[in-house]
This record gives sequence, C-alpha cells and structure tokens, in this order.
Amino acid sequence: MARIRLFIDHPLGTGQPVPLDAAQAHYLGGVMRLSPGAVIEVFNGRDGAWSARIASAGKRGGSLDVLEQTAPQRNPPDLWLVFAPIKKARTDFIVEKAAEMGAARILPVQTEFTNSERIRQDRLQAHAVEAAEQCGGTFVPAIADLAPLPRLLDGWDASRRILWADEAMAGPADTLAGLPRGPWAILIGPEGGFSDAERARLRALPFVNRISLGPRILRADTAAVAALALWQAALGDW
Amino acid sequence: MARIRLFIDHPLGTGQPVPLDAAQAHYLGGVMRLSPGAVIEVFNGRDGAWSARIASAGKRGGSLDVLEQTAPQRNPPDLWLVFAPIKKARTDFIVEKAAEMGAARILPVQTEFTNSERIRQDRLQAHAVEAAEQCGGTFVPAIADLAPLPRLLDGWDASRRILWADEAMAGPADTLAGLPRGPWAILIGPEGGFSDAERARLRALPFVNRISLGPRILRADTAAVAALALWQAALGDW
Repeated sequence: MARIRLFIDHPLGTGQPVPLDAAQAHYLGGVMRLSPGAVIEVFNGRDGAWSARIASAGKRGGSLDVLEQTAPQRNPPDLWLVFAPIKKARTDFIVEKAAEMGAARILPVQTEFTNSERIRQDRLQAHAVEAAEQCGGTFVPAIADLAPLPRLLDGWDASRRILWADEAMAGPADTLAGLPRGPWAILIGPEGGFSDAERARLRALPFVNRISLGPRILRADTAAVAALALWQAALGDW
Repeated sequence: MARIRLFIDHPLGTGQPVPLDAAQAHYLGGVMRLSPGAVIEVFNGRDGAWSARIASAGKRGGSLDVLEQTAPQRNPPDLWLVFAPIKKARTDFIVEKAAEMGAARILPVQTEFTNSERIRQDRLQAHAVEAAEQCGGTFVPAIADLAPLPRLLDGWDASRRILWADEAMAGPADTLAGLPRGPWAILIGPEGGFSDAERARLRALPFVNRISLGPRILRADTAAVAALALWQAALGDW
C-alpha cells in the first residue's frame, strides 16, 4: 500500500534511463525523502508498471534506471464521461473518481446552464494522473478541452451510445441490463439540469439512452460517480 | 433550484410557530439576506416539507410561521452504510454522498487498520443535514457514534444482511440481482482493507454477501458511493 508510484511520460523498458523533471525529483527527494538507490514504481499509461531505481534526484531534476515490469498494461473499457463543469472542488472530484473507476476519456462540456466558461485542462489532467498514481492504475484518462455541447453532438460518432442520467425524466427509464456493449459515453448535466432545447435534442438522438438515478435529486458529482458505477457493473469490467 | 431550505428539529404544521436558534437566524438574515416576510422551505425529517414565512430573524434567534405542506415525507429504503472513517475531507464526503443517495443510517466503525480513533459525530451529523437541505430531501440519516467492528458484529441483528465490498476478494463475487430485498447494510473497509482476522470473521457470517467493485483499487470514499449506487439500483428505490 505504501509503494510510491510515479507517472512518467517517457518510454519504459529494462535498463532504460528515464529523466526526472524538477517537480518529480523534488517529490521523490524532498517530499518523500527518498535517496538514490531507492526503488519506486513507474508507469507511462501505455507500457504497464515498472520498478525503477532512483539514480539521482536534485533541485533541477534527476534520473531513474528502469528495472523490470511489475504489472501489465491494463486499459479501462471504452467509456467516456461527458460532464458540465461545476465548482472547482467538485469538478476535481469528478475527474479523480472517473480516473479511479475506469473512464477512458473525460470531456468537460459547456451547456446552457453551465456556470464555467473555461476550465484548467492542465490542472484536471494532473488530477487524473494523481488518481492513477494513488490507485495502482497503469492508465490515465485524457481530459479534453471544454467544448460546447452542440458542437460535441454535431461531430458525434453515432456508434458510441450516450447514457444520459436525466434528472427531470418523465416516463420510464431504460434499464442498463438490456443495453448493448461497445463504446459508450455517460452524460451528466450541470446543477441546473439541461435546458428544454438541449433536452429535446438529446431525446431525438437515436443513440441516446436515458436512465434514472432515483427519486432524490443528486448533485452533479454524485450523479457522475453513481452512473459510472452502474455502467461498469452492467456493461463494463466490474 | 434557488429555493432556500432549512432543517428544523421541531414539529411542523399549518399555523405552527417555530423558533429559530441564533445560527439559523443568522443564516437566513445575515448570510442569505432574507427579511421578515420571506418564504422558505423547512423540514424536520419526519413530517415532509413545508413552506414557512420568516417572522423575525435577529442576532439571538428568531421565528417562522409555518404555512402549508409542500411535499410529503419520503424516507429512504432500510439501508445502512457502515464505513471506517478516513481522512477528514473524505469522511465528510462519504456522509454527504450517503445522505444524498438515500442511506437511512450511517455507522462509522473502527477496524484494525482504521486510522481514526474518534470522529466528530456532531460535525458529521451537520453534514448530513446540509446534504438533505441542498438536495431537496425530507429525511436526514442519523450518524451513529464510532464503534469497534467486533462489538458492532456481536450485536448484529441477523435479519439485516451485510453487503461487503471486498477489495481483496478471491473467488467469485455475489451478484446483486439475486439477493433478497429487505434490511441491508453496506460495509466499506479502510484504505488498508480488513485484517486477516476480520476477513475470516466476515466470511463466516451467514448474512454477509461479498461483491466486487472491479479490477481497479478504489479509494474508500469511491467504493462507498459505488456500492450505494449498485445497491439502490438493484435492491433499493432507484
């Protein structure tokens, strides 16, 4: 549990020297108090997990020597999470949870009732990296830039179905058990829900299925985690 | 969406005057900037939701006049959440999410690998109240005091089944679809999992079912929300 893990965007293989940037070297030497010779685990999102020995870790950077593979690469199912960004802490939370629970790609989307005009894509990507480091993963979901919902839907590949957790649902919900496997995206609205125009468009799309998340109103971050769990259990790799 | 809601631990009925304590009066008058005459929604966890008019709100307290019932009382299914407290922010989060998602009772439990020796029960209860206020609920789950797991299991009523989200599961998981309805408790371990002795005891209990939450290691707060979602969808009121 206490194993130190580091995401490194660099090819990994036995005997491969890997450079550390200043932030990584400071984390290992300054924060975690590791000395040269200490062994950590590294991953790059593509080549599984590897043990690596610290060769040097100083103020301006350092380097690792990669030893051997400790776990194979394991990618999540082909599930995207499309969500409207909310307050900072809750947006961070959604990204962390989506990375933990096995989303392959995370797409912040701007809706009519979205509060945020922009996001810090780099900060959210760093959260996804940290979640993978903490949780023993070998995959890091990519965070897309904020895009308007109409543009996202204009360019949507109809072979990827959308699971819409619809707060204001009238009529019966789809049940996950009967839905086909394959590429999916979960769509979570902002706190104020979707506008009438957005709802009409979503309802008319043949690749959209609506599900209910129960009789209580859920915050957007709760709805995201709940929908991820239901999808993973019914159609994913749980 | 912008309706102001307040939990009041007092009987509610048309024409009923309700006293406000200093904190409640400050919230309405000082924080939300409401004046006497403004109408809010109140609930007490037992009698549904009611509209109420502010009669007075000053530094030392105030009062409301209850107008009429706006929603019936709605209680969640008979589901408890038993969890090992973790870091403060994540424990707060578990309580908030459990209240939103419809847990009837929340029981912090001390396990061999639990970091916390004590909890602030009053602070956690306030979080549950706030979650119900925010999410339009009429029910507030009670937060129990921290209890050691062995004592909790010694006094356990065997008619309440336990759904154990077992990180270190060997062998096949139970599937939720086949499990009976009725009183349940979800059990979530601490970050380090359960000890061998705890695991042996849990496995031997005839009212415990184990489920898997997938191949990735989840943080305890993520596991709690995921298990709540799966239980609600399969056996609850979603």
